[in-house]
Formats: sequence, structure tokens, C-alpha cells
Amino acid sequence: MASPASPLSLLHDAPLFAGVDAGHLATLAQAARSRDARAGQLLFAEGDEARAFYLVAQGEVHLYRFSPQGEEKVFQMLGDGDLLAEAAMFLSPAVYPMTARAVRDSTLFAVPRQALLSLCAASPPLMLTLLSALARRLYQAMNRIDHLTLNNAGQRLVAYLLDLRRQQHGNWISIPVNFAVLAAQLGMTPETLSRLLQKFRQDGLLSGKGRTLVLLDADMLCEKVALPRQAMRPPSHIGGNPSMTGCCNLAGKR
Amino acid sequence: MASPASPLSLLHDAPLFAGVDAGHLATLAQAARSRDARAGQLLFAEGDEARAFYLVAQGEVHLYRFSPQGEEKVFQMLGDGDLLAEAAMFLSPAVYPMTARAVRDSTLFAVPRQALLSLCAASPPLMLTLLSALARRLYQAMNRIDHLTLNNAGQRLVAYLLDLRRQQHGNWISIPVNFAVLAAQLGMTPETLSRLLQKFRQDGLLSGKGRTLVLLDADMLCEKVALPRQAMRPPSHIGGNPSMTGCCNLAGKR
Repeated sequence: MASPASPLSLLHDAPLFAGVDAGHLATLAQAARSRDARAGQLLFAEGDEARAFYLVAQGEVHLYRFSPQGEEKVFQMLGDGDLLAEAAMFLSPAVYPMTARAVRDSTLFAVPRQALLSLCAASPPLMLTLLSALARRLYQAMNRIDHLTLNNAGQRLVAYLLDLRRQQHGNWISIPVNFAVLAAQLGMTPETLSRLLQKFRQDGLLSGKGRTLVLLDADMLCEKVALPRQAMRPPSHIGGNPSMTGCCNLAGKR
Repeated sequence: MASPASPLSLLHDAPLFAGVDAGHLATLAQAARSRDARAGQLLFAEGDEARAFYLVAQGEVHLYRFSPQGEEKVFQMLGDGDLLAEAAMFLSPAVYPMTARAVRDSTLFAVPRQALLSLCAASPPLMLTLLSALARRLYQAMNRIDHLTLNNAGQRLVAYLLDLRRQQHGNWISIPVNFAVLAAQLGMTPETLSRLLQKFRQDGLLSGKGRTLVLLDADMLCEKVALPRQAMRPPSHIGGNPSMTGCCNLAGKR
């Protein structure tokens, strides 16, 4: 196994910090504290004071809340190179809006909030990048809200698949989360999700294995759930990624 | 009828620009162009290049998208003193993510995007305020997503009512939108919403007139829809306002 990346290289590779002065980045990296988390260990809980954001050097972290039934509702799955909770640094009061837990043994770096705020004050271009990233995430969240207010589970699923198709530029799409998480994200039970996918397969509209799917006929998929065909849809929404990754992670994957 | 406010006084009164240097604000106000819109007139359409944000001096503007059935789905209703599309100024490419239309004869001021970006470059504290406002809106949107992924219409309605209660600090709550809009925002039909409210009234859990409601028994409301009682709920979420106003308007009402 390769040794975990350094905080500086992680910051350097994060799109959020692209173009930021190397000296400033080094200062930020120096403020970072290494933190190992065992599988199952909490990094922070919803409502905790948000004193640091995290860089995932190696491992896997889930961001979640509890459902009314007390089940974990995963909003985001993070892996090597991802940033975690950087948007929370700008909240007032700065508290974490979700709980983060390592699901595998992980190595992270905690970067103090104050170090980020100081860097912002010293680097207006960084703030502009952050504003742009936050605005994009906000509209991604809005697109999700738009989709979730479709009354019909089949419409929500097809709207989601079509957005992935737009985002991944083709009919071969890769679902970024497992099906239990996807069902929760689309506001349906795993059984409903499974039944819908099964039906689309039987109708010859969908194929593929595991989390890799092929949309065989997007227009017919729309017709099946009484959505307008693609050609008739209004202008595509900005930042069409409907996954919940939009909500906490500004920078996304590299 | 009082004459519409000036762009400078509108900017001055917007929380988003609180603490911004008076000279900078005056420069921004000077760049504003007055624009009258008749009832029914479009200000901009989803997908249009976002060259300006708006100040509503007087009137009423709806932000909406089209549903798959071609109906207007209202995300936000704006009135005197509200800002409109300021988050879109930071998108790249800068395009409006929704359509805006005057629903009454309105007087607005259009402030060019470039003027705002120049002000940002000159005023790091403004950017920090904007970052904080965007982060807050993002988490409000996330809370909405959290609620919308509740499978059950009754749970979504009760979660919404309880959030308003938290936000408005009491059992008397005022619904900020009309019931047709609320139903769309909660992902249910107006009939379902009406039926649920009627049932809560009959059960003695809810009272009030029009858009002013009184929650008579929050715990029983939760029990009715199989949500955990308030005392058992996890720490309250940040910026609990679940209305869709979070998504386009950073500053909110004064």
C-alpha cells in the first residue's frame, strides 16, 4: 500500500485550492494535524463545534444523519483526496451539520478553521473560488430538491439516471453510491428501487451489472414514467449532479 | 403608495451588505439600472446568461421552474427589499438556474454582475459575508433534502411544521407561501396536503386560520405520523428553515 499523501499535496491537488499561492498553501498545510481513525470511529457528530475541516489521505468516511426511525441516512461517501466539512467552516455558528464516521481504517488531516479563515483574508482569489464552488453546490442541491418534489418514485429515479447520463456524458453510467444509499437519497424504499430497476430491465430500457448501468432508450424511460422526452425538456439545469455529494463537499473529486 | 426605495437604500438595508464600506455600496448603487416589469412579464428565463442580480424596490416576483407536466413550480416568492439571483452571479458559467417573473406590476433595480465582482475584489469582508450566507443556504437546502427523502407525506409535512415552529420560536406559525406552492415544495398534491391538515385539525392537533396555524400538540403530531417525539430528536439542524427560499436568495428578508 502506498503511504498516505502529505497535507500539502492533498491541498495542492484539490480543485478548491487551484491557483492559490504556494506559500499560502504551505502555511495551511503546516497547520494540519494528522489523525488516524479506526473503522467505525466518529470524526465528529452533528451539532459539534466545527473547528476543523478534513482531508482524507487514505480510507473511507461517510457523512450521515439519523432518519426518524433511527437509521443512518448517508449523504456522502468520501475517499482518498476528498475534502470534508469545508463549507461548515463558514457557518455561523460554525457547527457540523452532519455526523462523520470512518467506515474503514483511515488516515486524515484536520485543518483548523482559523487557518482557513486567515488564508481567505489573505487571498481574495481563493474566496472567489470558494464562492463559485458554494454557488454551484447550492444549485446542485436545488436541482435535487426539484427532483425530489416529483411526486412519483419512478420519475425521481429516471430524472436521477438522466442527470448522471448528462454528467457522465453517455449512456453508460456509474452509480456513485450503493443501492441502499441511493434509495434513501431518492426518498424511496430499497424494495421500490429494486422493483423499478427490475421493471426497466424487463422492458429492455436498461441493462448493465452492479452499479454500472446502460440506458438503452432514454426517451422510452421518460415515457414509461410520464416524464417529457429529453428533446422536450427545458434547458438542462446547472451542475446536474443530483447525488447528495453536493451538500458538504465543495471541491468534489479531483 | 410610497415611492420605491433607491438602490442605495435597498443595498444598505440588505443584511448581505451589512458592514460594507459606504463608498463601495454607493459605487454598486450607481451601477444599478431601474427596471419596471408589468404583471406577468419575465425578468429572465432559466438558462439565460446571468448578467445582473436584482433588487425588488416594489412589487412581487416569483422564481420558478417547469414541472414535467409543464406546470410552474414556484421555488421562491420575493417582495419589497428582497435580492434576487445574487448567488447566480458566482456561477460559472453564470446562467440563471430558474425563471423569474413579475406577478404584480413591479419596480426593480438590475445590478450588473461585473459591478458586484469588482466590489468583491475590493472588499474581502464582503466576500466572507457572502461565503457565510451561501454556506447557510447550502445547509438549509440540505435540510430540505433531508426532509424530502422522508418517504411519507405526513412526515414531510410535520417535519416542515416543526421546523417553522423552531424558526418562528413558538407554536403560532405563519406559512410563508400559499398552500399550492407548499404542496409542490413538499412533494405532494394539494389534495394530499389539504387532507392531512384537515385530519390534524379533526384530531385536535392543529388549529388556526388561513396561513396562520397553531400547533396544539407537537408530540402527538409526531406520533401521528410515526416520527420520534421532539424530545427524542437528534440535535436540531442548522438553519432550520425548510422553505425553498433558501436556494436563490442569500440574504433573505430584512
